[in-house]
Amino acid sequence: RALTMVNETQQTCSASSSSRSDGGSSSGSESSKDNSRCSTPVLDADRHERLREKMRRRQDAGDKWFSLEFFPPRTANAAVNLISRFDRMGAGGPLFIDVTWHPAGDPGSDKETSSMIIANTAVNYCGLETILHMTCCNQTKDDITRHLQKAKRLGLKNIMALRGDPSGEEWEEEVDGFNYAVDLVKHIRNEFDDYFDICVAGYPKGHPEAESYEADLRHLKEKVFAGADFIITQLFFRPETFLKFMKDCQAIGITCPIIPGIFPIQGYHSLRQLVKLSKLEVPQEIKDVIEPIKDNDAAIRNYGVELAVSMCRELLDSGMVHGLHFYTLNREVATTEVLKRLGIWKEDPRRPLPWAVSAHPKRRVEDVRPIFWASRPKSYIYRTQEWDDFPNGRWGNSSSPAFGELKDYYLFYLKSKSPREELLKMWGEELTSEESVFEVFTCYITGEPNRNGYKVTCMPWNDDPLATETNLLKEQLEKVNRRGILTINSQPNINGKPSTDPIVGWGPSGGYVFQKAYLEFFTSSEIVTALLKVLKKYELRVNYHIVNVKGQNITNAPDLQPNAVTWGIFPGREIIQPTVVDPVSFLSWKDEAFALWIEQWAKLYEEESPSRMIIQYIHDNYYLVNLVDNDFPLENCLWQVVEDTFELLNSPTQ
Amino acid sequence: RALTMVNETQQTCSASSSSRSDGGSSSGSESSKDNSRCSTPVLDADRHERLREKMRRRQDAGDKWFSLEFFPPRTANAAVNLISRFDRMGAGGPLFIDVTWHPAGDPGSDKETSSMIIANTAVNYCGLETILHMTCCNQTKDDITRHLQKAKRLGLKNIMALRGDPSGEEWEEEVDGFNYAVDLVKHIRNEFDDYFDICVAGYPKGHPEAESYEADLRHLKEKVFAGADFIITQLFFRPETFLKFMKDCQAIGITCPIIPGIFPIQGYHSLRQLVKLSKLEVPQEIKDVIEPIKDNDAAIRNYGVELAVSMCRELLDSGMVHGLHFYTLNREVATTEVLKRLGIWKEDPRRPLPWAVSAHPKRRVEDVRPIFWASRPKSYIYRTQEWDDFPNGRWGNSSSPAFGELKDYYLFYLKSKSPREELLKMWGEELTSEESVFEVFTCYITGEPNRNGYKVTCMPWNDDPLATETNLLKEQLEKVNRRGILTINSQPNINGKPSTDPIVGWGPSGGYVFQKAYLEFFTSSEIVTALLKVLKKYELRVNYHIVNVKGQNITNAPDLQPNAVTWGIFPGREIIQPTVVDPVSFLSWKDEAFALWIEQWAKLYEEESPSRMIIQYIHDNYYLVNLVDNDFPLENCLWQVVEDTFELLNSPTQ
Repeated sequence: RALTMVNETQQTCSASSSSRSDGGSSSGSESSKDNSRCSTPVLDADRHERLREKMRRRQDAGDKWFSLEFFPPRTANAAVNLISRFDRMGAGGPLFIDVTWHPAGDPGSDKETSSMIIANTAVNYCGLETILHMTCCNQTKDDITRHLQKAKRLGLKNIMALRGDPSGEEWEEEVDGFNYAVDLVKHIRNEFDDYFDICVAGYPKGHPEAESYEADLRHLKEKVFAGADFIITQLFFRPETFLKFMKDCQAIGITCPIIPGIFPIQGYHSLRQLVKLSKLEVPQEIKDVIEPIKDNDAAIRNYGVELAVSMCRELLDSGMVHGLHFYTLNREVATTEVLKRLGIWKEDPRRPLPWAVSAHPKRRVEDVRPIFWASRPKSYIYRTQEWDDFPNGRWGNSSSPAFGELKDYYLFYLKSKSPREELLKMWGEELTSEESVFEVFTCYITGEPNRNGYKVTCMPWNDDPLATETNLLKEQLEKVNRRGILTINSQPNINGKPSTDPIVGWGPSGGYVFQKAYLEFFTSSEIVTALLKVLKKYELRVNYHIVNVKGQNITNAPDLQPNAVTWGIFPGREIIQPTVVDPVSFLSWKDEAFALWIEQWAKLYEEESPSRMIIQYIHDNYYLVNLVDNDFPLENCLWQVVEDTFELLNSPTQ
Repeated sequence: RALTMVNETQQTCSASSSSRSDGGSSSGSESSKDNSRCSTPVLDADRHERLREKMRRRQDAGDKWFSLEFFPPRTANAAVNLISRFDRMGAGGPLFIDVTWHPAGDPGSDKETSSMIIANTAVNYCGLETILHMTCCNQTKDDITRHLQKAKRLGLKNIMALRGDPSGEEWEEEVDGFNYAVDLVKHIRNEFDDYFDICVAGYPKGHPEAESYEADLRHLKEKVFAGADFIITQLFFRPETFLKFMKDCQAIGITCPIIPGIFPIQGYHSLRQLVKLSKLEVPQEIKDVIEPIKDNDAAIRNYGVELAVSMCRELLDSGMVHGLHFYTLNREVATTEVLKRLGIWKEDPRRPLPWAVSAHPKRRVEDVRPIFWASRPKSYIYRTQEWDDFPNGRWGNSSSPAFGELKDYYLFYLKSKSPREELLKMWGEELTSEESVFEVFTCYITGEPNRNGYKVTCMPWNDDPLATETNLLKEQLEKVNRRGILTINSQPNINGKPSTDPIVGWGPSGGYVFQKAYLEFFTSSEIVTALLKVLKKYELRVNYHIVNVKGQNITNAPDLQPNAVTWGIFPGREIIQPTVVDPVSFLSWKDEAFALWIEQWAKLYEEESPSRMIIQYIHDNYYLVNLVDNDFPLENCLWQVVEDTFELLNSPTQ
């Protein structure tokens, strides 16, 4: 019946057909049945489309795009850095990133540095559309199927199918084995049907091992006809190389997108190495420039950027190129510079939701999260990765509130970007009292240097400097932290600001966003006792949850129901309420929030040292408190609550 | 894991145990695990509790209540009247109503007047907690099981288990048959476990056929011990009769609630008949008053009310009685008068949701509906009765938008309360043009009499006078209806009024309610053509759906997504959005809205008559339009849209 109804809409209204065709994409008839019962109203098509559809849509809209290639790092520390690079470069709006397959590095394993796990991180934790490379030569069918199954399970939806470099000098074709990329393409389509989008490699100069340029083109056509969705090319040095290649491809019937691989020259040695591996020849005009400046890294990089920009411009201007693929060599500066100069680096301050969405297909409909993990979204994603359903529309509907436990693996992803020495400088080489802890919190809020002259740019609960939104509350936060209300999360109340507001806006334009004021902090049991007395005066207005490390819990939440604290109203959509204060999740968060005192802070100090014992004391005796002011149209009363608490503490009868 | 977390909350916080016990029922630890993932945050416990739990909660809170007994009517017309009586008397807040079982009237059938169907209507369409009586003598086990299964399927959750009057002079016990009510109680518990709440009858003077008062008490105890949850008594004339009975019950170990049956004397003949049937004796002091005034109905009723009020007061003052059960004899005045004088008739203007909720357990979580059926909630409930899941939190999540078709049965429940002659007076004995139809709409809006001096108090799309909320828009509505914008549904925009607002408020107190302006109307294709041109200017602000009887549909709804048009923000809860404009449902509503022109209006006139042809013309050629102004914080622009449309129509170029 639903189908019938939607079909009825496809009749054209004769009286008004003109106005309807004017309506363009806003006309209802263009929606699929699936969309008509869409359960994630706020999010754009990006979250639902396959990569090949996104590519097509961007091309149809004349909207140029770029993508970024990375390789897996060697060490866990390098992995932490690469992940922050994903976050930073992800902000520029790549259509996808891809992660190369290192057969020597146990690429399908669960190691923190494996290709599989790095790609997993990009998709799930950084929310990036990701292509995982995979090579097939010297591997069994079973191995490959296992890798693909694992990739699918982890939420990867795109594979770059490659042959890889045969090991051993005398490589011979195996009968029924994986000899060429085309075998892998066929295998993926056989075993996984249309699940994956498949990318294959194109060689603008022909593959070095191919009999001829023409023979190589025919191989490429085979790969495409076996089921590849698009082509990324090997790097090249002159735009005409690519444009000729593209025309030749089209001439033999290859119609899928062909994306030029761009290599901004970043240094003399990296260029030499790449050329050696790829067996490409560097044109004389480039050699002529580089040789004289080969010891001047900066000069070479400037030249490389210049060269890449001019080549990209020529490609884009040709009208044949809609997207550019960058071989980043895991570096940030040159590629970012090229992209910014081309004007296709687009930092979009508008967020579909107040928090960064994950790209795992399981999480496509997710649009509600507890506020507690606002500064630790990766931890939230990690701890909920085993969920089958994600809350959508309402938190209370989610099937399971069971949060995964903290494990080493988890701690790796969430470990601080700063090394121990730096943390000690920020948080104190030696703590003398609880007050010295108050000082660290205060310095983090104010941005002022601590007594040893170091700025506190991160905290165990927040690996980044204070959010812009929190800055709105800076003055009040400073005041309360000084007095031992150790804040770790907060938001101001908002009564209907435009969804395009640069600081608090999110979601489609034309909407209005709202917030209830929120404050979360650690504090002593003495303060909690006074606070509870004060809260009685605010009983109908303020909801509170107060818990210690042992799980002793005090709350006035009705029926342990979640409290929506961020929501948005948009044209033609259902209401979105992306963050809630959920009393049940709070008890899982509590475990994590208390553990961070020990794992990230106490363990910086020697066992039995006074500094460690101070942190341990706080961990054992303080309470974690959250407060919500339900009266969002009025002035935030939470500061008054805290003020009243201190007044009560200081009153003579106390 | 969830369980563990909730359990942790049950530890008592030593540092603050005092403040916690002060917290009383607001403390989180008192919530069940089930509640902690409650998916209907806004609604009170009423929607989740069983009748016996509600009874207990009201008793614990010292909150006196009442219930109302009705019998099934003989004719379909009488059923329509009884249903409106359910609605009116339901407004006074009965804890439940009960419907007697008429063995002679095919009580378990699908007839409009059967006990089963009347009880079904009370639960599903009127949203009343309902007890269905059931008698067992002279019935087979299979019959009874079938009746119970049907009752369960229809959403009935409470049974009054009775023996019933044996037919035939010489009644003999059947071996293994249903000889007494206790057999029925045992059968229900055997076959349906704890599904039903079971009520049994108590006889304050002893059952007339019992060997003795004491023997009858023992029978009652058997019924309770077999699984009955509470007792309703036969009527009695003196409060001490009941109080003695209650003490005697308690003395032999009956501890369940015992609810006195109150019979306000409403007339001489009804009293005589009842006395005859129940074999009760009327006390001399009552006879003495009644006999001299037996021909004065009003005097007897006044006396009856007086007598009932004083008896009820005595019962309530005894402290032993928490609820009163009224034998209404399907009449309204006397019982309502008694209840009002006792102060337990409580018209609560606060609504849990903007629309009346249904009491079927399947619909417990329902909290979103399309706005189209706002004036026809019974039709909506009927047409969605086959759904397994009801939208909750978000419309888009509901599994099936398949609406049941209009059928005779449906038309019965939704037929107008007014007879044909009255409708003709309101809507015109003779229509001469489309303008005479405009006039009817205009008179309905203004409340002014039509040209023949009759007030238009209902319309095919709305069987009641204009809602208070719509009154806010009266002036504008009058203007547009005069010009052929025939409005059938509308709401003003609201930007955060208190949830306790007497006109637009709903949900728990302390919250804020919001609305987007909505306007729905029939209009000619000429006006639609102009309207569509005007709507281009409002493209980003106004969402529209325009459809004719053939289903030709024009809309700018993004991806056919629903648009939330009523929502509320409450302390400590998730967001509730109880009404949406759903593009898919609109096409089902369209069928119904167009059909009403013919079924309710055109058919009043002779076939081929000019009046009928005018309505038929409108039905065949007009469009049904709905408009939403998404910019709820600004002044409603929909009137301007209509104004612009008429301006365009009147402009010389048109």
